Amino acid sequence: MALATDTIESEVQRLGRKLYQQAAQNKPSLFESRDLLGRMIDWSLDDESLRVALFRFVDVLPSLESSSEIGRHLEEYFTRVDHALSGLAILANVLHAGTVVAPLVKRNVIKLARRFIAEESGNHLPSVLSSLRKEPAAFTIDLVGEATVSEAEAVVMQQRYLDIMRRLAGVSAKWPECSQIDQSSSGKIPRVNVSVKLSSLCARFDALDPNTEAIVCRRLRELFRRAAQLGAAVTVDMEQNDFRELTLDIFRRVLEEEEFRVQPYAAIALQAYLRDSEHDVTALIRWARAHQRRIGVRLIKGAYWDNEIAWAKQKDWPIPVFLEKAATDASYERLSRLLLEAHDVIDPAFGSHNLRSLAHAIVAAKEIGVPINGYEIQMLFGMAEPVRQAIIRNGQRVRVYLPVGELLPGISYLIRRLMENTSNTSFLRQTYAEKKTVDALIKPPAVAQGQQVEEKHDRQRFYNEAPINFAKLANRQRFAATIEEVRGKGQKRRQPARNDRWLESVNPADPNEIIARVPAATLADTAKAIDNAARFFPQWRATPAADRTEIIFKAAEIMRERRWQLAAREVLEVGKGWREADADVCEAIDYLNYYAHQMLRLADPRETQQLPSETNSYFYEPRGLAAIIAPWNFPLAILTGMTAAALVTGNCALMKPAEQAPVMGEQLLEILRTAGLPQGACQLLQGGGEIGAALVRSPKIHVIAFTGSREVGLEILRESYTHRLGQTHVKRVVCEMGGKNAVIIDNDADLDEAVVHVIDSAFSYQGQKCSAASRVILLPELHDRFVQRLVDAVGSLKIGPPEDPRNALGPVIDADAHKRICEYIQIAKQEANCVLEMAAPEEGFFIGPAIFRDVDPQSRLAQEEIFGPVLAVLKANDFDHALAIANNSQFALTGGIFSRSPAHIEATRREFRVGNLYINRGITGAVIERQPFGGLKLSGIGSKAGGPDYLLQFVEARTVSENTSRHGFVPVERAKN
Amino acid sequence: MALATDTIESEVQRLGRKLYQQAAQNKPSLFESRDLLGRMIDWSLDDESLRVALFRFVDVLPSLESSSEIGRHLEEYFTRVDHALSGLAILANVLHAGTVVAPLVKRNVIKLARRFIAEESGNHLPSVLSSLRKEPAAFTIDLVGEATVSEAEAVVMQQRYLDIMRRLAGVSAKWPECSQIDQSSSGKIPRVNVSVKLSSLCARFDALDPNTEAIVCRRLRELFRRAAQLGAAVTVDMEQNDFRELTLDIFRRVLEEEEFRVQPYAAIALQAYLRDSEHDVTALIRWARAHQRRIGVRLIKGAYWDNEIAWAKQKDWPIPVFLEKAATDASYERLSRLLLEAHDVIDPAFGSHNLRSLAHAIVAAKEIGVPINGYEIQMLFGMAEPVRQAIIRNGQRVRVYLPVGELLPGISYLIRRLMENTSNTSFLRQTYAEKKTVDALIKPPAVAQGQQVEEKHDRQRFYNEAPINFAKLANRQRFAATIEEVRGKGQKRRQPARNDRWLESVNPADPNEIIARVPAATLADTAKAIDNAARFFPQWRATPAADRTEIIFKAAEIMRERRWQLAAREVLEVGKGWREADADVCEAIDYLNYYAHQMLRLADPRETQQLPSETNSYFYEPRGLAAIIAPWNFPLAILTGMTAAALVTGNCALMKPAEQAPVMGEQLLEILRTAGLPQGACQLLQGGGEIGAALVRSPKIHVIAFTGSREVGLEILRESYTHRLGQTHVKRVVCEMGGKNAVIIDNDADLDEAVVHVIDSAFSYQGQKCSAASRVILLPELHDRFVQRLVDAVGSLKIGPPEDPRNALGPVIDADAHKRICEYIQIAKQEANCVLEMAAPEEGFFIGPAIFRDVDPQSRLAQEEIFGPVLAVLKANDFDHALAIANNSQFALTGGIFSRSPAHIEATRREFRVGNLYINRGITGAVIERQPFGGLKLSGIGSKAGGPDYLLQFVEARTVSENTSRHGFVPVERAKN
Repeated sequence: MALATDTIESEVQRLGRKLYQQAAQNKPSLFESRDLLGRMIDWSLDDESLRVALFRFVDVLPSLESSSEIGRHLEEYFTRVDHALSGLAILANVLHAGTVVAPLVKRNVIKLARRFIAEESGNHLPSVLSSLRKEPAAFTIDLVGEATVSEAEAVVMQQRYLDIMRRLAGVSAKWPECSQIDQSSSGKIPRVNVSVKLSSLCARFDALDPNTEAIVCRRLRELFRRAAQLGAAVTVDMEQNDFRELTLDIFRRVLEEEEFRVQPYAAIALQAYLRDSEHDVTALIRWARAHQRRIGVRLIKGAYWDNEIAWAKQKDWPIPVFLEKAATDASYERLSRLLLEAHDVIDPAFGSHNLRSLAHAIVAAKEIGVPINGYEIQMLFGMAEPVRQAIIRNGQRVRVYLPVGELLPGISYLIRRLMENTSNTSFLRQTYAEKKTVDALIKPPAVAQGQQVEEKHDRQRFYNEAPINFAKLANRQRFAATIEEVRGKGQKRRQPARNDRWLESVNPADPNEIIARVPAATLADTAKAIDNAARFFPQWRATPAADRTEIIFKAAEIMRERRWQLAAREVLEVGKGWREADADVCEAIDYLNYYAHQMLRLADPRETQQLPSETNSYFYEPRGLAAIIAPWNFPLAILTGMTAAALVTGNCALMKPAEQAPVMGEQLLEILRTAGLPQGACQLLQGGGEIGAALVRSPKIHVIAFTGSREVGLEILRESYTHRLGQTHVKRVVCEMGGKNAVIIDNDADLDEAVVHVIDSAFSYQGQKCSAASRVILLPELHDRFVQRLVDAVGSLKIGPPEDPRNALGPVIDADAHKRICEYIQIAKQEANCVLEMAAPEEGFFIGPAIFRDVDPQSRLAQEEIFGPVLAVLKANDFDHALAIANNSQFALTGGIFSRSPAHIEATRREFRVGNLYINRGITGAVIERQPFGGLKLSGIGSKAGGPDYLLQFVEARTVSENTSRHGFVPVERAKN
Repeated sequence: MALATDTIESEVQRLGRKLYQQAAQNKPSLFESRDLLGRMIDWSLDDESLRVALFRFVDVLPSLESSSEIGRHLEEYFTRVDHALSGLAILANVLHAGTVVAPLVKRNVIKLARRFIAEESGNHLPSVLSSLRKEPAAFTIDLVGEATVSEAEAVVMQQRYLDIMRRLAGVSAKWPECSQIDQSSSGKIPRVNVSVKLSSLCARFDALDPNTEAIVCRRLRELFRRAAQLGAAVTVDMEQNDFRELTLDIFRRVLEEEEFRVQPYAAIALQAYLRDSEHDVTALIRWARAHQRRIGVRLIKGAYWDNEIAWAKQKDWPIPVFLEKAATDASYERLSRLLLEAHDVIDPAFGSHNLRSLAHAIVAAKEIGVPINGYEIQMLFGMAEPVRQAIIRNGQRVRVYLPVGELLPGISYLIRRLMENTSNTSFLRQTYAEKKTVDALIKPPAVAQGQQVEEKHDRQRFYNEAPINFAKLANRQRFAATIEEVRGKGQKRRQPARNDRWLESVNPADPNEIIARVPAATLADTAKAIDNAARFFPQWRATPAADRTEIIFKAAEIMRERRWQLAAREVLEVGKGWREADADVCEAIDYLNYYAHQMLRLADPRETQQLPSETNSYFYEPRGLAAIIAPWNFPLAILTGMTAAALVTGNCALMKPAEQAPVMGEQLLEILRTAGLPQGACQLLQGGGEIGAALVRSPKIHVIAFTGSREVGLEILRESYTHRLGQTHVKRVVCEMGGKNAVIIDNDADLDEAVVHVIDSAFSYQGQKCSAASRVILLPELHDRFVQRLVDAVGSLKIGPPEDPRNALGPVIDADAHKRICEYIQIAKQEANCVLEMAAPEEGFFIGPAIFRDVDPQSRLAQEEIFGPVLAVLKANDFDHALAIANNSQFALTGGIFSRSPAHIEATRREFRVGNLYINRGITGAVIERQPFGGLKLSGIGSKAGGPDYLLQFVEARTVSENTSRHGFVPVERAKN
């Protein structure tokens, strides 16, 4: 075997060298370009900041309508680049004539794009195809399009595929036969081949939503049917890792259907950079053999490498890709063999521009005994032409992956190609730009041993809790089962055992379902709890910070163990969707861990100045009794955050959860107790406003931590700072109130992103977040298009009980909220034009999302917090006006902008004065430590939860100064507590 | 000369070696001791923590009355020592039998002390003296006593000197003649010789107070007269550097008087460790020659080395001593020569135990031609006996410095001796404990070149402004002149130029003197100023933090240039004494510099988490308009602090100084403007409460920074947190209110320190500080003694206009205050026993200090803030009771304890819950950065001025989160603002 490996390796080297000799003679077209952009790409190889500016500029360009806009962006991007090449001076000179140079630049970018993407209509595509056939090279068509965000768009996309198959079937029929590309070892192969991204076939490609699979299967069936009729082939592209499991499932499920047992010719792409790919390949081969269904597999390395890492790090999930390029290359070679060895059911296709990888596949095929037309090589249109030519000359069947469509939606494809050409690890860059030796280029991939170690979590620093990955079937099944489990437990409690007053927790999706009954506190209970706390406080204060943090860390661990149950209960108690409920539990765990870490930082007294005869220390102590008055919308997270902050700093907490979410309060207390928190340190008072008011007014309370409405917040502030008889301190109020948050959509925004994130920000959890987007501000140019896509996309969402993950939208919290929001919708109808008002189930507190356009910035709809699924769309004259409208609010909690103009982004950072500003992303879901959260103006007092200054509100500082000298004896001592 | 030096050096080496041979044969008695303490001293040579514990224990021991107290202290000190020597185990065992071992330990310490200090009464002293004469050695008597804090104590001290001279004159007359010690080159010399510390001869040895010189001259004259009558000699000891200039002045002034031109034999001690000593020696020689007055000079190295460094660092003054031991030794040799060369008028005495230094002096004398009895060697009683014997055997006249008196007051002397025996650099330790070679011991002092560099101040870090050193005559003269200068300027302004309303600034020491008239603001002015500020705010906010801090740094520089004038104005405007006024200006400068430094720290946004595709930054922005409502008692510092904090963070300030101190407001504004502060950033509103109220109520004000009374503070809090029409934010109140501050005097307190610091804390600036001590809590044992010393000491202070530095006490601020305080004194007389009520001048708002004893902790006198020179003395049953009384207050600003019990100090740290706790020192005069200042309970909201968290109150945090990826392109970017 070792001998065999050696033999193969020397064969790979021989072939690689041969192919290289041929390929190296010519440069790929991109590297030959001597025009402006070509030169800039050239420069950018050496200059990262230029590369960033260039890619971003190219990214935004297609969305720029006018020359003046192009000129402005050119100037904004390139005048801030610290590029020292003298060549740039020429460019800088012309920049000031932006409008003159703009058409030139645009022409260049279009030219650049058309190197990679063919035009869909007209003669461009047929002429590209026929010249490919002359090489000879086969093709597969990829239809580029905007991200699909609505049913309507999904239907359009499906139709485009159906149409192009029919069209090309006609065209291709006239082509003369070419056995190198039309014949495989098992016979004639389809000339027409399309590659399809499944996410383009539905409004919301989400494994969590069972409808996704149903809808996509239906649409894919249509494509397969048409392909079968026309004798065309369909390859299912692989997208991000999150989609992988569902994509494979759909592919297999449809092919298992009787109708498709033989036809059409179907293939799927797999990515060698994924650590799980070996498992997938094996499983797929096993499946094909079991079902005796011959399929094609396109083995590629994968194009989302940066993104996969970024997404995983965002969620603190394991990184799914190999971190080392060589590991991916090695994986590619391993998987090549696996596929070739399964030649009985698999038609392998090797998609790569890397000569080493290709030579290895070719040699392996020969060695395994797969005939030269028993597999194919695939390459991208416009890329690595000399390599392609060498491969073709070697007698291989080569298929070119050909994106077809408009420049704007094609831009993400274009960017990926530019990255591939300019990345440090790219074979093309190494070959044609860096001119590495052939030895280096074709050497076998050397994987450093033990390099890929997962980052270990430890107690030394804070880590965010990773959300449940609902892309995994097992997790979806477990969550569904957990909902039934906790529902069963809740129901057992329906009969109260005592005759006390009880508080009922009601499922807002079905008010007849009582989740739980909990004992309600009386005013006498409240007074007693305050006294208990006052009595216990000295003991809790004297407990070392290390012990207190230990309890809170422990509570985080327990909460992590119970996270499934907690999230499931939230679904039932407050009507949150699965992801939202899980996120709330994660945030609660984060609060515990983060504040415990912060306390460790604050616990040590600091020496203020070092002096020989005096020690001076500065340290913090708890304030005393903290009243925690929490809202129902993040029923565990906010309650936990405020309580943990109070407790870990040494205050005694009197915890009043929202009356709509008493179960969460019970659960938290149980967890804290289990973690070892003493009885007196935290007491639970279940009830409504009268309990909160009693706490606020008590002269024995030191801190009030409140999150809720503006009205209640202002009342609490006034009451708390009114000195009362017997009060021997000034109270401290930590107060987080409402929002009326705006998102500005700049003219150069990436609409695909903007639509998706606005919907999520405005309607997730029915808009019942203080951070929710309730105003969208548009400029005239994009206005109608954005509103249309937005309305279509929201209209594609399902409303119903959130325990069913089909429903993207659930109920609002209670009857009062339902009534208030409905009233607002009526008011809004008089103030503005309603462009969407969806129907909702009659039972439960459901409200269909409503969208209004032409909203007056001064109207109630634009000024008042509605706290429901109602979105106001406002039109601004220009960007400055948009900023002014955005700031025109008594609130200033969150805000967002979608823009690709560095100057506008900069201006927004500076002047859109909200507590949490989000640029080119959604405006909800602040993560602890990452995005310390809290508002300005009447949204709050600026004390950011989950941020470095939060705990300071719960402590008071003391200074102790000690003269350490004794009659001239001045020992060296340092400050201590 | 080089040759001569070489010859001398070899002669020094020869003599040194000879003396060493003799001296090294025996150990000094201390190093021979095999008893418990002797052993512990031995161990402590190797163990710093043990040494610290031991010295502190010895320090406190004489003040411990009972065995149980001694036992408790033993346990407290030594169980926390991390001493690993097995010998300690024995000790640790017996510790638990504290009361058994206590008498033993006390006996040991008394034995130890009596090695160094003779008993004053009885036969001990005569027998010590006669055995000294047998060696033969002469003597000089030092009478140890408590620190002199009152006139009565000064008179007692003087009488003790007069008595002992008379007594010893009698005793000494009977001694047989001994030429080695009774004869000098100029004839017979006095047998009786006393050494006097001038500070013991007056209640308040302070160069700033012109009375000091007068009083001390008077008492010294008496001693000189008696000495002349008896043929005795008087040596004036040198104490700390602060006393040096005045001590030399008094010594010379008295000797210049006709009566003392020849008699008595008088000498003065000079310290070689002072960098200024060469100047002093030269000046003294010049003076002696000019006045043809033969005097003795005792050259010593100096015993306050640690203290001098500590004191200088406390005040940020240049360190007056050499930092290297070798530099002191070299200085000693230089000064030795200077003195010997002035043999025509100087009788040099070389006080040292260092063989090298002594050998050098002896050889130099010979070389210069001073006969062997033309100078003398001095050594301390109980120290370095073998060295003394060797020197005597060499035929030198040796005089032994002999402290006489009680153990308690002698303890500081004892501690210094223990230090000398155990210090790393001590000749004795090196010789007898470390057994260095003779070569090392007698080598010439090698001073490292360029070692002693003063710490350079730079902008990189914050430094406290150094106060004026009033020990220097030039500074006293300059300050007096500056008062006259600013008074002249003020008077020019007496005629108002316009017909507006004016506010008059009145000298509280003379209400007929109008310091200045300034324009008073109307409510219309206030409204206009608010509008101006609101208009300018966006511009000021947009000014880079670096520019804002630059202006504030510049203001600090300008204030430093004008500090003399500013302090002088304060003396006139608010009746502060010179030091107090200067301290206030220093603090103002500190505030400017400190907050500017803090702002630099806060200015940079911080990256909250590092992620590949998202930047997250957290940064601060100003809140908006800040109303600054300042008090009159620190009329520049507090106004400057609050204003600087508001401005440097980017808020616009509306500055309302106290109506009693409008000049300070004017001056500050002028300085800020000169530093480049834009008009709109800070506006001055002169006036009373109605202006403050208008600011507080305005819906346009964002921050209110207030320092003042509890009543006004609580009103401001209530008003500020009551939401008003048109207000689109929550106000933030920074509020510092009153205090009712207690000092606990533990039974083991160092009374000398306690009395002085309590007086300063209670009565400086007439008690008109929120930090002032207004309660002293005593335990029964020390009660009467402390009260007596306190009353005597306060009774020794002078009251009158503070422009005259004779007056330690000035007026209260105005007629209202005068009336209020007088009423409180009447109330107090009904509640408690008045033990002091001093008379005060009729003109001006003077009130004599009042002290009450037997005060009920619940009485108004013990509970209400009086803000004047009224002190309540309370008696506690025990330490815990004292703590309970101390905490029994609605206020919790400052507090203090004098104790030498580690357990009590620890308990106080933990449980005496005040904003600023001071241990074994005064409780006022918090220094910026060193002691961040602010109170708890109703003293304030815990935001400490001059501390690291203060600026956070003037800013709001914002979070900006940017998705930096573009269609899979994930450039590496870091968070920025």
